[in-house]
This record gives sequence, structure tokens and C-alpha cells, in this order.
Amino acid sequence: MASLSCSSDLATLINHTAAANYLCNQFDSISRKLNDATYAVDNTYLLFSAYLVFAMQLGFAMLCAGSVRAKNTMNIMLTNVLDAAAGGLSYYLFGFAFAFGAPSNGFIGRHFFGLRDYPTPSTDYSFFLYQWAFAIAAAGITSGSIAERTQFVAYLIYSSFLTGFVYPIVSHWFWSGDGWASATRVDGNVLFGSGVIDFAGSGVVHMVGGIAGLWGALIEGPRIGRFDRTGRSVALRGHSASLVVLGSFLLWFGWYGFNPGSFFTIAKGYAGLGYYGQWSAIGRTAVTTTLAGSTAALTTLFSKRLLVGHWNVIDVCNGLLGGFAAITSGCAVVEPWAAIVCGFVAAWVLIGLNKLAAKVEYDDPLEAAQLHGGCGAWGVLFTGLFAKREYVEEIYGIGRPCGALMGGGGKLLAAQLIQIVVVCGWVTATMGPLFYGLHKLNLLRISRDDETAGMDLTRHGGFAYAYHDDEDGSSRGVGLMMRKIEPDSTSPSPPAPPLSISSL
Amino acid sequence: MASLSCSSDLATLINHTAAANYLCNQFDSISRKLNDATYAVDNTYLLFSAYLVFAMQLGFAMLCAGSVRAKNTMNIMLTNVLDAAAGGLSYYLFGFAFAFGAPSNGFIGRHFFGLRDYPTPSTDYSFFLYQWAFAIAAAGITSGSIAERTQFVAYLIYSSFLTGFVYPIVSHWFWSGDGWASATRVDGNVLFGSGVIDFAGSGVVHMVGGIAGLWGALIEGPRIGRFDRTGRSVALRGHSASLVVLGSFLLWFGWYGFNPGSFFTIAKGYAGLGYYGQWSAIGRTAVTTTLAGSTAALTTLFSKRLLVGHWNVIDVCNGLLGGFAAITSGCAVVEPWAAIVCGFVAAWVLIGLNKLAAKVEYDDPLEAAQLHGGCGAWGVLFTGLFAKREYVEEIYGIGRPCGALMGGGGKLLAAQLIQIVVVCGWVTATMGPLFYGLHKLNLLRISRDDETAGMDLTRHGGFAYAYHDDEDGSSRGVGLMMRKIEPDSTSPSPPAPPLSISSL
Amino acid sequence: MASLSCSSDLATLINHTAAANYLCNQFDSISRKLNDATYAVDNTYLLFSAYLVFAMQLGFAMLCAGSVRAKNTMNIMLTNVLDAAAGGLSYYLFGFAFAFGAPSNGFIGRHFFGLRDYPTPSTDYSFFLYQWAFAIAAAGITSGSIAERTQFVAYLIYSSFLTGFVYPIVSHWFWSGDGWASATRVDGNVLFGSGVIDFAGSGVVHMVGGIAGLWGALIEGPRIGRFDRTGRSVALRGHSASLVVLGSFLLWFGWYGFNPGSFFTIAKGYAGLGYYGQWSAIGRTAVTTTLAGSTAALTTLFSKRLLVGHWNVIDVCNGLLGGFAAITSGCAVVEPWAAIVCGFVAAWVLIGLNKLAAKVEYDDPLEAAQLHGGCGAWGVLFTGLFAKREYVEEIYGIGRPCGALMGGGGKLLAAQLIQIVVVCGWVTATMGPLFYGLHKLNLLRISRDDETAGMDLTRHGGFAYAYHDDEDGSSRGVGLMMRKIEPDSTSPSPPAPPLSISSL
Repeated sequence: MASLSCSSDLATLINHTAAANYLCNQFDSISRKLNDATYAVDNTYLLFSAYLVFAMQLGFAMLCAGSVRAKNTMNIMLTNVLDAAAGGLSYYLFGFAFAFGAPSNGFIGRHFFGLRDYPTPSTDYSFFLYQWAFAIAAAGITSGSIAERTQFVAYLIYSSFLTGFVYPIVSHWFWSGDGWASATRVDGNVLFGSGVIDFAGSGVVHMVGGIAGLWGALIEGPRIGRFDRTGRSVALRGHSASLVVLGSFLLWFGWYGFNPGSFFTIAKGYAGLGYYGQWSAIGRTAVTTTLAGSTAALTTLFSKRLLVGHWNVIDVCNGLLGGFAAITSGCAVVEPWAAIVCGFVAAWVLIGLNKLAAKVEYDDPLEAAQLHGGCGAWGVLFTGLFAKREYVEEIYGIGRPCGALMGGGGKLLAAQLIQIVVVCGWVTATMGPLFYGLHKLNLLRISRDDETAGMDLTRHGGFAYAYHDDEDGSSRGVGLMMRKIEPDSTSPSPPAPPLSISSL
Repeated sequence: MASLSCSSDLATLINHTAAANYLCNQFDSISRKLNDATYAVDNTYLLFSAYLVFAMQLGFAMLCAGSVRAKNTMNIMLTNVLDAAAGGLSYYLFGFAFAFGAPSNGFIGRHFFGLRDYPTPSTDYSFFLYQWAFAIAAAGITSGSIAERTQFVAYLIYSSFLTGFVYPIVSHWFWSGDGWASATRVDGNVLFGSGVIDFAGSGVVHMVGGIAGLWGALIEGPRIGRFDRTGRSVALRGHSASLVVLGSFLLWFGWYGFNPGSFFTIAKGYAGLGYYGQWSAIGRTAVTTTLAGSTAALTTLFSKRLLVGHWNVIDVCNGLLGGFAAITSGCAVVEPWAAIVCGFVAAWVLIGLNKLAAKVEYDDPLEAAQLHGGCGAWGVLFTGLFAKREYVEEIYGIGRPCGALMGGGGKLLAAQLIQIVVVCGWVTATMGPLFYGLHKLNLLRISRDDETAGMDLTRHGGFAYAYHDDEDGSSRGVGLMMRKIEPDSTSPSPPAPPLSISSL
Repeated sequence: MASLSCSSDLATLINHTAAANYLCNQFDSISRKLNDATYAVDNTYLLFSAYLVFAMQLGFAMLCAGSVRAKNTMNIMLTNVLDAAAGGLSYYLFGFAFAFGAPSNGFIGRHFFGLRDYPTPSTDYSFFLYQWAFAIAAAGITSGSIAERTQFVAYLIYSSFLTGFVYPIVSHWFWSGDGWASATRVDGNVLFGSGVIDFAGSGVVHMVGGIAGLWGALIEGPRIGRFDRTGRSVALRGHSASLVVLGSFLLWFGWYGFNPGSFFTIAKGYAGLGYYGQWSAIGRTAVTTTLAGSTAALTTLFSKRLLVGHWNVIDVCNGLLGGFAAITSGCAVVEPWAAIVCGFVAAWVLIGLNKLAAKVEYDDPLEAAQLHGGCGAWGVLFTGLFAKREYVEEIYGIGRPCGALMGGGGKLLAAQLIQIVVVCGWVTATMGPLFYGLHKLNLLRISRDDETAGMDLTRHGGFAYAYHDDEDGSSRGVGLMMRKIEPDSTSPSPPAPPLSISSL
């Protein structure tokens, strides 16, 4: 806008230096204040979006807690708190640098370790915070898959590795301005002339978390009692539907930060109409998100009623989340009606994968691999089919290919398929050996006794609940009155201080 | 601001085309960026307000869950999830069109079906999202009134009808620029020279939900055991005060989106003082909301202590919500001190109506008709009494009548009374026959057996909670160990797949 | 920017009145709209920050509820609801006036009672709302210390006194433009040439609440059974770890309003770089907050594992909150790496103080005095050590002293020490006598019978939970089936209407 050369340019034109200076000073002053207002609104938008995404961690914690048995509640909630806390440190120290430390070679970032030389003209602390909230979500997904049977030390190891290395690399590839498959590559040399459009991370976040969970759960096997001797599936129901619904609603709430927030800025007009700009695209993204989740929830409701005979709120919540996980990739570039298609298919993907899981005796207490992995993969594909030209061009630039079913040819679809393959491959190649190694070292799965007794009692200092105040504890059986149980040397699996790795 | 004619106008004045062009280009560039910033902040404001209103749905879910008995928890939470999900689809397909599809005949909108030809210069996707979050709140209110005894199929039918038709029509009348009773009528031809001031919907949302609930609850009658043989009221206490408090606080939190958010935009100065503008009115609205709720909560606390002898947190929460429901109509146009009057009276309205309900053996598990219907009606009236001239003129235009007690004469009050009558009439005329028809078809109320056993067990696949992990389930009585109960052909009321309407 | 004299100034320069008027009108029009946009974004930022801080009250309620035994759940949740509601009224009537009613004598404010003559050019309703949300937090902290044994009337008295008088005075001293120790003193005559930097209130909020709680808990003594006859500490575990985690996460979420929100405005560029401004400082504040809490949580996790042998989620949550309470003072003026130091030490402060508390038989059910008082005091000190010159100058002005370890000399540190002494002294001098007086009048502590039975049953109308629906209530013992118990004249401690002070 008002440039440094204003005074001399204008002075030449109006032939009056004082007047030119006066006018140019006015322009400068206005420009500076307008610049401030624009940064302010963009950062306000991104910060509050980050807070919403952070709220999803609370949603995960409640969803996970409600979905496991009461005896493992403290364990899984602790993993959720630690995902956020340990993720805060590791993402600050190196995760963010791996992910967004441009310039890079396209495979791994190498700047901003410990937020050194940050902020930059293009990204600010709000961007770091936003990306941190994404990083911790991936680890949260995985903890659902391997719930109720995983050693705490194994959790500490895989979670750090996932949040600090595996996930940042993937986000570098697909989201960084240097990423080899990114649609926002600054040098314009995008994959297949298109780049992968994974707007808010069906692939980058959900598939990564889900596939990591898949390998963990496969390697350690099902929980005791999850399948009977004939291989028939036995539901091990979570202990609180209220917590499940609370968690699902909080995730829905937070998803409005996750998807629309992925625009990062809001104060950007699109060509042509004064009232139409990034704020409209952001609003539309919130609408597509809502519609995909809503459709998936309703589809699940009626499908399950037909298939099982219940109106099941837990299944509806999972269907809802499956719809969200699917739309996350294309939310910004598809029309609202397409979001309905996305959610409808996502519900069936989840139902189908759950059937398959029961058949192959795969046990995933939160259905995380099916939901985040499966619906996430469908979402990546969906974008390759339904992305609308106009929206793609507004966000990624004129001339970019759109969805195969929207007259865009196969380039975008091909890029999306590449993403699915690459994410599966990378996560398998990193997390697979890690889980297998932990398994071989007997660090992955807890003992049968511990699993039967529950981890809260054996590892976390007691039972999560005490609804009755029975001071002597003698008149009731165990399970209800665990309040006073403290570890001592005679308990079956004593957590022996000082800390030794074998008793973690 | 900078107009297309700037260059020629200015060129005439300063007699120098190049200089004029230069200056006008500067103005244009600044104007465009300023325009973007303004849209950005307005949409940021409205979007995050919408997210807060959405969080109220979670608040409702928790409040309802905590207020019913444990055996019906899954049922009522499912209705709350579905209000949001089904509402998302139906409001997208036609509800929004009925409500805001201007131009219309003043009674029902007829544009924007499926968000066709949307956004417009005056409203964007954020407005749709905001209105959707309002629409689903109305249905949530009603589900409280008829909790613990209503067939799920009846819920599906009335909820769709309410969210998709009854509520949108009412919002068209009072909020659309074409509505016959709207104070924001674009042609200026407002009812009684005033129009109805129902700023955030004490009438449009709360009365609609409450009166619908009233008819539902009246037609199906009280829950088993709610009144003994002598007609004495027996409290059927909810199963979790923690969930009630959680829900109430979330509703309080969300109300900051509901009331202040109803300004839709924030970047608008009011005449005169540079520092005073819509942002101030919005802040004041948050303050009046806070004060009305707070006063109602305190009034209830001490009143109930005197009347019943307890310091009752559940009653305090209901009083709080009653205060909010009342201030919702006038929140933007009254002074803070008037909000205190509003809350004080609202508390007594609720207490009085609850006494009346007990006397006439009306059973409303959430007190929804009394709270949202009764306090909502008081709120509509209150606005007609206490609206301040200055604030009314800032929002609705110079010369508009203010409250009867504030020197404004009876015009606004008359309009407000019309709203009460019309809302009661419309909801009665639509929802009354619907509930009655469902009743006659035996689709409204569940069987006695189902009601005694609880709906979670008979219709929703099991009990909501399992705090104890007792694998064989034999050592404890029913009620505690419902985890493994699955519907089969010998259960008293088998939900028989395939789906047949009679077994819904 | 564009001033009233623009036209005449410019007319003189370009010698053409009409052209000057034209240009100046353009500038005026742009300036007005820019002014509106700036106010809009600043108020949007502050309002939503206030809403987040309000959400902390919900967090407190859940944390407190989960941390007490089930029999006192309704009691403590009621105090949390009332902190917000009664605080709303009292802060409106006089609290805000005491705190921010400048001009004042530096010790107590005296304007804006009942928000008279409000808003002003410098602060708006959003500021009032934000400060109200802070005021209610202090009372919430104290209620944790004296939980499970305090009469409800005592709560009503101390809470009003704390929120309405003690806390507002402290906030006047350290935060008001007139406060004698404020770093933002408008006359520039700051304490030690520095003023106290308590950016978001480690001292003003957390120490005040914590020290008030310390005196309350000391004076009424430990709960029955908290220490056995030999003085050995016996854990009286809270009844729900899920509620504790829910509350802790909500507090984390709300802290993003508490700390970054304390900038009040966001649209302010800092000298030099166009992209660097208050929005960056705000983002950095969110990052330091995150890192301090995360580090404290991790430190607590491993420390407790070593010391006690558990991986304890409750302890991790408390550690996390201790880290937040500590960073609150310096969050805006320290580098991210320093926040890690802050959190690490905070965790050990909390562990040490808890050890000390057990040794001296001090019982604080929420560890509130240790956490908010102890870690808060550490935070005040920490700022005096680690505040960075550049950040201090950006916020408080050029030439202000920075932290002692950052080359700033001892002035800031001395001011911080003064704050610790003064806050301890003032709260002790006001709350100490109050609690002691209540104690002497037998109004402070409940009876032994009531404490054993639980306050919910004896004072609040029943037990908070009823997970089993046992219609006649005869087949189970007390504790579980309290649903129908209503106070009558034969109950051991009858709350006798009409209200008499002795039975409160």
C-alpha cells in the first residue's frame, strides 16, 4: 500500500513537496494502523482456533475414559494429560522444527528448534500453538487403540516418538511450504501439478494416529475376554456413556477450530465481490464439517437400528466422529452437499471396518484405527473426487486441478492416493518396528494379573471412583472401596521405588 | 468510502489526472484492505459466538442427563446428539430457508434451500451456522419436558417437525428482515410502529421450546411414581448433581454466544463518541446477561432456603437458567440494574410455576416448560417495560418506542404482548395436534414395563454406567451389572429388526 | 490520525479548499472505519478471553467436586456456582469500583459503583467482564482449602468479603493505573522505578486465594480422619478422578484467557517490524503458559514415581496447575525457555509444601494453599529473576528494569518481594480475623455428626448421585439410596425454616 516512495512519487505529480509529505504521512499512519488491525484479527482468529483444538484433547480424554472399563480410567486419562504436556515440551524443542523449519530439503525441517529465530514475517507464535495442538491429537488417537492393556513405559516411548518425530515429518511433507507433496509448496513445483490437498489432516493427523494404533493393537493382541473361545466378539463396554457423550460433543466443539482454523488467517478478500473472502470460505468449512458429522451420525443411527436393533448413542457418537475425520481433508474445498456424501460413506466405512475387525479378532477399544485410519483414508480419497474447482483455486491458486468427479481429471486423485500409500508406509515403517521391539522386550503389554485387576489399582495408586464413604471399608467387597489401597511390598505386582525400567 | 468516481472527482478538483489517480488508487487499496479486515473481525466474532451457542447443546445434554434417572441417561443424551445432527441436515435443507429466505411474504421464507445462492452481501455462512445452533436449542428444551417416558420414534417425529418447521417460521416472523412482527423489518413498516424486540429469543427460542414441551408433557402425563395416590408430589431425583452443575455452567458459558452474539457484527461505531460502539453494546449485553442469571440464582438460593430448608444446588442452577431465559429478550436494550430486576422476578416466576405444576400434577423432569416457557414469557414482557430509549435507538433506529416504564408509552409493550399470544398460539396449534396424534396412535408414551425398567436397557442396548468390573455378573443384583444384557427375542419388549414402526 | 485540522492544513498546502476537503473527508471516513475495526478486534479479543476465564469457574467446580468425597459434592459445587453468581452482583455494585475506580488515592478506587459513568474512553464493558471473571476465581481457590468441613453461612460471609473487598483492593494496588505498586501507574511514579510486574496475577489472584485458604484451613483444622492418632497422614481420596481431569483440562483451557488475555488489547504494533506486535507477545504468552504447565506436570510425574511409586494422574494434574499458577505472574515478559525453569521449580515447590503440610498436620483437600499460595509466590519471585528487558520495555515502557538474572539489577526483584510481603500481610490481616471470629462464634466448622454424614445429606437436600433406581429404597443401606430423604424435624441437625442464622 503506502510505500516509502510515496512522498517522492507524489511530489513529482503534484509538484508540492510539503503537500505530498502531508498526504503520504497520512497514508503511512493509516497503513500502519490497518496493518496492526489485520495482524490482530488474524492472530485472534488463529489463537482462539488453537484453543478450540486444544479443547479436543479434553474431549479425547473424556471419550477415552468413558469408553474403557472403570478399572483403567486413571491410566487412560493420564496418557491424555501427558500427550498434551510432553507434547508441549517436545514440540517446542524439536517437533515444530522438524515440521515447519523451512527452508528444508522437502523431507524434514531444520529451523526453529526451541523457537529460535521465531516469529518470522509469515508465521507467529499463534501458528506454533496451533500446530502443537494438532500434534498432540495424533498421539491421543493411538492411545485409544491400545487402551486397557499397554504398559505405561511403552506409552511414554511410543508417544514421544510419534509426537516428536513420526508426525512432524508427515506434516512437513504435506503442509510445509517445502514439503515434497505439499499443495502449498512455495516453489510451485507441486506433485503431479497438484500437490496433496489434505486441508486439515484426515491423512496427516487421523491416518497417522489410526495406523499407529493399528500396529500397536495388532502386535499386543486383544484384551482378555474380548473374544470368546469360539472367536465370537464379546463387548467389553465402557464404564460411562455420559463421559463418551461429553467427549464426543467436546470433540465436535473443538473440530470448529481444527477444520476452519486450518486457514490460519481470515482477513483476506477473494477477487471480485467485496463481501466474499476467506471469512466466507471459513464459514463454509464450518458448515461442511457440521454436515459431514451430522450425516454420518444419522446414517449410523438408522443402520445400527437395522443391523443390531438398538438406538445406540455410543455408536452414533463414533459415527459422528468418523464423519468428522473424513471431511477433515476436503472440508475447505467441497460444497456442502458433497459433505453429506462424505459423511454417509464414512458411516458405512466405519461399520464395515468394525465388522471386519470383529471377524479377524482385532480389538481396538476406541475403534480408533477403524475410525481415524479408515474414515481418514476415505476422506483423503473423497477430496480427490469432490474438490470443487472454484474453491481449490481460491485457496491454492489458479489452474490447480480439482476433483475427478468435478471435471478435474485424475491428477488430484492421484496425489491423494499417493498420500494414502505414503502415510501407511511411513507409519508402518516407523511405528511397526517400535511396537514390535517393545513387544519383544516385554515392555508392551501388561501382565494378565494386572489386566484383570485393572491398571489403576496396580500402577496408578487406586481406583478412579469412590461413590460411597465407608470409613472402615470392611463391609463391602473390593472394587467399590479401593480408596485406601496403597502399594506395598506384598501387593501382587509392586511398583517398586526406586524407578526401575522393568517395573514401569 | 473511496468510490469509483474518486479519480474523476478528484481530477476535476486538483486539475491533475495522474495525481488524482495516484491518490485514488491509494484510497482504493486501503479501502479494500479495510473492508477485508472489517469482514474478518465481524465473521470471527459471529463464528466464535456460534461455537459458544453450539456448546450449549453439550450443556443441555449434560443437564438433561444429570436430571433424569440413571436408567434413562443414554436415551436423553441420544436425543441431544440427534437434535444437533438431524438439525444440521434439516436446517441446511429447508429450515434456514423457511426462517431467513427473504424476500418473502412475511410469514415464511422461500430462498436458500440447501444454501443455494448463498452467501449474500448481507449474510454469510457464519450467520447460517449461528442460526442453526439456535434452532437445535429449541428442540433440546422440549426433550427435557417429556424425558423418561417418550418413545424414541415420537422424539424423531416431533423433533424434526419442531426444528424444521415450527421454529423456523417463528424466527421468520420476529427476526427476518421480512417478518411481519420483526423490529428489523427492512421496509420500515413495523408492528405498532415498534416491532417486537426479542433480541436473542426469550420468545422465539425459549417459549417455543417450553410450550412445545408443555403440550407433550401434558398429553403423555406424569412419570410413574411422580405423584402418589393422594396426588402428593414425589421427587424423582436426577442421578447426578455433578452433571447438572456441569451442564448449567456450560449453558452459562454458551449464553455469552447466545445473547451478545445476536448482534451478528461488532465493528460498528455508534454516533458521537469514537470509543463507543456496537462493541460496547455487546459488552453491556454480556453484563446484563450475567447479572440477570446471578440475581435469579441468588434469589432462588435464599427463597428455597426459606421455603424448603435446603441450600439446593439443583434449584440454584434452575433459577440461574431461568434468569438467563428471561433476560434473553431484552439483554441488549436494558441497563444493568434492570437486568437485576429481570432476574429477581424470573426466580419467583419459576418458583411459582413449579408450585402450580405440583398442584395440577404436571410432570416436567427438567422444569423446561416452567423455566423456558414461563421465564421466557416474563422476559418478553420485561423488555416491553424496561427497554431504554437510547439503546433501542442505537440498535433499531431513531424514533423507535422504548419500554413502558422508561417513558416509552405502550407501543412496544403491546408488540411484546402480541408476541406472547402469537407464540403460544402457533406452537399450540402445531405441536398440540402432533403430540395428540402420536398419543392416539400409541406412539407417544412407552409401556409401563419399559418405563419401570428404563429405556436404556430396553431400547438403547444397556445401562449407561458400569463402575464395577465383575466379569461373570452373577454376584450382584440387576441394576448394577447390566453390561452384558443384549436384546433378544425373550425380552419383554423386543426391538425386532428389521425396523418396523411399531417397535420404534 | 486524520485530525479536525486536516482540511485547513491541507488547504494551505495545496491551496485548494475543495480538493483539501475532499481528501480530508476520505481520510476521516477511513479513520472512523479503521477506528471501529480496531475497537472491534480488541473487544472481540477481550470478550472471548473473558469467556475463557469464566470457563475456569466450571473447571474449578469440577476439580473441586472430584477432589472431595461424594458426600460433600453438592456442597462444594454450590459454592462454586455462588462464587460466580454472588460475585457478579457484588463486583457490579462495588468490587469493580474498589479495584479500578480511578482516579483514586492509590489504595482503593472510588468510581464506577454499579457501572455508573461507564464505559470510558480507555475501558469498556468487556474489561469489567474480564475483571469479574478474575475476581470470582480468587474465591474459588479458597473454597478448596476449607472444603468438606465448613458451614455454609461461613462460606457466604468469607466469600462476599473476599470477592467484594479483599481481592479488589489488592488488584487496585498492583493493576490499576493509580495503584501504589502498579507497574502501569499513569503518573509514572512507579515503586523502585519499576513497579510490581504481576502480569496476570500469581500474586493478585493466586496468592490471595491461597493465603485466605491457608488461614481458613489452619483455623478450622483438619477433616476427621485426615491424620491418625500418631499424626500419620491418611489420604481422604476424592470421589472421581474423571471430574478432576475434566476440571484440570478446563482450567488449562481457560488459562489461555487468563494469561494471554491480560494484555486486554491485541491490535498494537511494536516498534520496528510490521509483523511483530502485541499479537506476537500474546502468542508468546500462550506458549510460556503451555510450557510452564507442561514442565511442571512432567516433573511431578517422574518425581512422584520416584518418591511414591505411582504414576498418579491426580498429582500430575495438581503439578500442572502449580506450573500455571507460577507462570501467571511473568508469562508475558519471559522467554519460553525460562518458562520451563519456572514450571520445573514450581513442581518441586508444590511437592515440598505438601510434605511440609503433612508434617505439620495441615489439611487442604485441594492443596490450594500450597498450589496457589506457594507456587504463586514462586511465580512472583521468578518474574523478578527472569523477566527479559526487551519484553518488559515493550509492555511497560523503555527504561524499566528487568529480571535480576537477566542483567536488570535488583529493582524489579525488590518490588516483587514487596508484593509477596504485602499480599501475605494484607490477606492475613483481613481474612485471618474474619475466620477466627467465625470460629469463635461457632459459625465456621460443621458438627462432627454432619461431617461424618456429609454435608449434602444434612444441608443440601440429599446425595449427589443415584446410580440405581430402587423405587422403595428399602433393600439397600443408606449412602446409596438417599434419593427420597427430605429434611424433617426429627433429622439429627434439622435445617429449620424460617431461616435462622444458627441453622445456616
